[in-house]
Amino acid sequence: MLAAVMTSAALTLPAQADALRDQAAEQFQVIPSMLPAVNNNPITKAKIDLGRALFFDPRLSASGVFSCNSCHNLATGGDDNLETSIGHGWQKGPRNSPTVLNSVLNQAQFWDGRAEDLKAQAKGPIQGSVEMANTPEKLLATLQSMPAYDDWFKLAFPGDAAPVTFDNFAKAIEAFEATLLTPAAPFDRWLEGDDNAMTEVQKTGLSLFMEKGCSSCHSGVNFGGHDYYPFGVVERPGSDILPENDKGRFAVTKTADDEYVFRAAPLRNVALTAPYFHSGKVWDLKQAVAVMGSAQLGDELTDDETTAIASFLTALTGELRPVEYPLLPAETATTPRPTAEVIAQ
Amino acid sequence: MLAAVMTSAALTLPAQADALRDQAAEQFQVIPSMLPAVNNNPITKAKIDLGRALFFDPRLSASGVFSCNSCHNLATGGDDNLETSIGHGWQKGPRNSPTVLNSVLNQAQFWDGRAEDLKAQAKGPIQGSVEMANTPEKLLATLQSMPAYDDWFKLAFPGDAAPVTFDNFAKAIEAFEATLLTPAAPFDRWLEGDDNAMTEVQKTGLSLFMEKGCSSCHSGVNFGGHDYYPFGVVERPGSDILPENDKGRFAVTKTADDEYVFRAAPLRNVALTAPYFHSGKVWDLKQAVAVMGSAQLGDELTDDETTAIASFLTALTGELRPVEYPLLPAETATTPRPTAEVIAQ
Repeated sequence: MLAAVMTSAALTLPAQADALRDQAAEQFQVIPSMLPAVNNNPITKAKIDLGRALFFDPRLSASGVFSCNSCHNLATGGDDNLETSIGHGWQKGPRNSPTVLNSVLNQAQFWDGRAEDLKAQAKGPIQGSVEMANTPEKLLATLQSMPAYDDWFKLAFPGDAAPVTFDNFAKAIEAFEATLLTPAAPFDRWLEGDDNAMTEVQKTGLSLFMEKGCSSCHSGVNFGGHDYYPFGVVERPGSDILPENDKGRFAVTKTADDEYVFRAAPLRNVALTAPYFHSGKVWDLKQAVAVMGSAQLGDELTDDETTAIASFLTALTGELRPVEYPLLPAETATTPRPTAEVIAQ
Repeated sequence: MLAAVMTSAALTLPAQADALRDQAAEQFQVIPSMLPAVNNNPITKAKIDLGRALFFDPRLSASGVFSCNSCHNLATGGDDNLETSIGHGWQKGPRNSPTVLNSVLNQAQFWDGRAEDLKAQAKGPIQGSVEMANTPEKLLATLQSMPAYDDWFKLAFPGDAAPVTFDNFAKAIEAFEATLLTPAAPFDRWLEGDDNAMTEVQKTGLSLFMEKGCSSCHSGVNFGGHDYYPFGVVERPGSDILPENDKGRFAVTKTADDEYVFRAAPLRNVALTAPYFHSGKVWDLKQAVAVMGSAQLGDELTDDETTAIASFLTALTGELRPVEYPLLPAETATTPRPTAEVIAQ
């Protein structure tokens, strides 16, 4: 069986290597090394700096414990390495935290795509009762209580008479998050012509990834993140992996066809973002590949095949530019005080 | 009354400015700009880098939620701006989190001085059931499961055959924390000869700080952090500020004289580290000064006096060098999985 897989490695002879690259280039794009343009939000240095401060500031949560970075930790692949996040009052969130890395390149945000972009996304967890449990009013009171934030908002939004708004808060976070690209993954370097950037097994995995049909959903610059599919196209996984009470995009569209429909997960840096699936129930990348094979493709992949595909997926780990940890302003007499209390909904 | 205080401003005439500086130089020292030598732990670049990774790694807690930085947040003055920290299972810790900034310069660690240095301190919260709720065994299993940590420990402890140990973990954290000095506060610049580095009110505050007796306990390089005193030398504060069930250093020494005895809080960067006292019950720096006046000095300070002293204390805010947020290795198949479960003690 290993031999059967290894014959695919013949693809790396010059002509066939080019054929594999040509085929890949039709379905995938490299991560840009420049900031992409962001809809309705020109990205400036001042806005990025403000967004970085906000992203790391735990005082934006009701308890003072959680920042954006708590669940989208830039140290650990832009997520929190938990099945589902722990938030206000030690409550568990309903779905696995997706990585913030390269998320600006996704078509929409959240597992069900309910936010059209990162500025819409940023307004969600702040208010989520099991996440940061804050309100826009208290958030703005917090920001307005610290003169440095006032200065930073003025620099970031120079045209606004009163720039400390919930919309601008969200735009600043989007601006920072737009910088969180991870270019130069082995796959990208290979796609750009460096034959040695991926191993033979990884090239075999890429070939299988396209031939078996994974790339029907996981394609584009982010290897996913641009469209929605039922989890269990062919065979619905057990309720351990696909909990029955989470109907996915159905909650957004109220369309019966969208029951158990989720965004095809973007697979960039997937080797850093275990556990997998919206339920976060699978820790092993090979196992996740096998589950996808049976659930989505009706294909019981061999061990060699899952090994090669998982190996290829590790070639999607890119390089995050260094991020300087911010220094935040001190609270003042008018800063709302943190509360650990859980208010019943 | 303001006029009475303001006459102290005459101290800033050249000769008297020198007199104030001479008096201050007998009691206080500037923050060193070089790393201090650390007992039994030579500080190397490799050890600092490892310590920085460990300091920010939430996977060192049982839940995967808390890192050292959660309660000693370098973005917000090296503490968490909470009355007392929130830890595993949303439990509240017993005492206010002290700042990690300049903590290497303290004589001992914790409010009751129960750890003789930072390497001893680092072993505490990791195991605290209301903090990170981990065990040394699970901690080492976590570190050993990730090859990059193995490499980093080898670089940091090149003489050790098996360097991934609980002691070395603590030493690496101490090495990183020893870099967290905040030199060049206005007070330091003034003490070194820059007459304009402090305002007139701040100089008046410094004069009062010494004349009234604050500096009897809050002296040295850290303005405290080197000895223990009863909270309420003259008049014990109410149980709102001094909870009756926390007898302070008595728990360490079992000596009746040590009931309600605590370390004189180091006052460096105190303007960034509200709320105050081991109970964290006072948010306002002026109010904290007033409480100290009545409890420790038997002196009902006037509003002008507390204003001047509090203003002086803001001159103890130094400059933290930029810290790069680390990139941590990904978990592997053998990494212990996070658990949010609270185990009864």
